[in-house]
Amino acid sequence: MSTWFEDLREGTVTELGSYIFTVESIKEFAAKFDPQPFHLDEEAARSSLFGALCASGWQTASVYTGMNIRSRLAREAAARARGEEIARWGPSPGFKDLKWPRPVFAGDEVTYRQSIAALTDFRNRPERGLLVTLGEGFNQNGELVFQVTGQILVPRRTPLPAA
Amino acid sequence: MSTWFEDLREGTVTELGSYIFTVESIKEFAAKFDPQPFHLDEEAARSSLFGALCASGWQTASVYTGMNIRSRLAREAAARARGEEIARWGPSPGFKDLKWPRPVFAGDEVTYRQSIAALTDFRNRPERGLLVTLGEGFNQNGELVFQVTGQILVPRRTPLPAA
Repeated sequence: MSTWFEDLREGTVTELGSYIFTVESIKEFAAKFDPQPFHLDEEAARSSLFGALCASGWQTASVYTGMNIRSRLAREAAARARGEEIARWGPSPGFKDLKWPRPVFAGDEVTYRQSIAALTDFRNRPERGLLVTLGEGFNQNGELVFQVTGQILVPRRTPLPAA
Repeated sequence: MSTWFEDLREGTVTELGSYIFTVESIKEFAAKFDPQPFHLDEEAARSSLFGALCASGWQTASVYTGMNIRSRLAREAAARARGEEIARWGPSPGFKDLKWPRPVFAGDEVTYRQSIAALTDFRNRPERGLLVTLGEGFNQNGELVFQVTGQILVPRRTPLPAA
């Protein structure tokens, strides 16, 4: 796939890969960034709202980001190998609607994917278009555990005409 | 401050503390979760959109989360020391409008704060209210570099009457 705005298609789904949330990875992330008892200690987690050790929502989001970026870098490398010029994506006007509909428990395997939700003109930046993505993570039972709407500016081969 | 919904007040601002984004912390986070060249390599960053090594937005968000949680745990510990019953906060219906208006460069010191943006009834959970927070981070020049709207359910001492 090319890295330019004109070549993106609404509805395209990219499978990003899977990640197993081990007890160790959950506790390591939580100790730094989200030291709530149910992310740090099995015993405390049992008597919490969640009932068992579960991952920080910011860990499930950060793992998604890692996979998303590695997927993009791989597409760029493939395009470069074909001799194409690479469009430099960014910056991001921000993310929206970050949700964790179900907990991610220790041992859960989360499979992530990203869809192109919308492709929008960005009138004050005619040389770029706005790519809106829907990121999702599903556990091994197919249940949605993570969702986020992303936005990033992507270079156009041909700038929009002045309005 | 008590940990119950009835005792929260719109507009209350909590200072969460400051964090210096070292080169090492930026590269360590990026290598795991956001391996874009401008988060990993000074040379590559110079020719990027940002012009210098800068932190992943998910690192600035994760550092905010760590400070936010530690601040809440300290309030809980203080309430416990006064012999009060502790309200168990959660879960979160999700975050909104995650934005990074300016890059956080290596060496920047970001000072975080959180304000109570709204306190709302949550009719399908009468025993809890919805706390809406605005989280912000400012660099050493007072410029906004991070912003997020958080939501979390907080127990009421007295459940709402049935509608």
